Amino acid sequence: MSAALGNLAGFLTTFAFLPQVLRAWRTGSTADLSLATILAFVVGVSLWIAFGVAIHSFPVVIWNVVTLALNLCILGAKIRHG
Amino acid sequence: MSAALGNLAGFLTTFAFLPQVLRAWRTGSTADLSLATILAFVVGVSLWIAFGVAIHSFPVVIWNVVTLALNLCILGAKIRHG
Repeated sequence: MSAALGNLAGFLTTFAFLPQVLRAWRTGSTADLSLATILAFVVGVSLWIAFGVAIHSFPVVIWNVVTLALNLCILGAKIRHG
Repeated sequence: MSAALGNLAGFLTTFAFLPQVLRAWRTGSTADLSLATILAFVVGVSLWIAFGVAIHSFPVVIWNVVTLALNLCILGAKIRHG
């Protein structure tokens, strides 16, 4: 039960960023996105990956790798479009 | 060591959203923010809170409560400003 809850929570908080990536690509407009938010989140998620490795938790690693990939796309769009 | 890493990661991925809240309040402009992203993230973080309660993890609950509060501020700004 709690495993299913954790999986659904992980799925949602990871793939939540996909519509933001698609929106940034489609509109080419990222002025309203906070660069500080994206940077802090990217660093934080990278530390979650390191934490997952340290505690040998594959789910923590894999969810955060996908979250990092999506947020690096958002960061790239922000750097490109300002 | 891994506890410190987890705490720092939790701090960053939680308070990362503060600059986005402040930016939305300051500019009153949220057009570039994806509503689908905010909604999915709010639901996902709510499920993380339920997961934290289910596994009796106070850190999981408290980090996600703060993350939820900040993202509800972002959602409120998005609903208000479009």
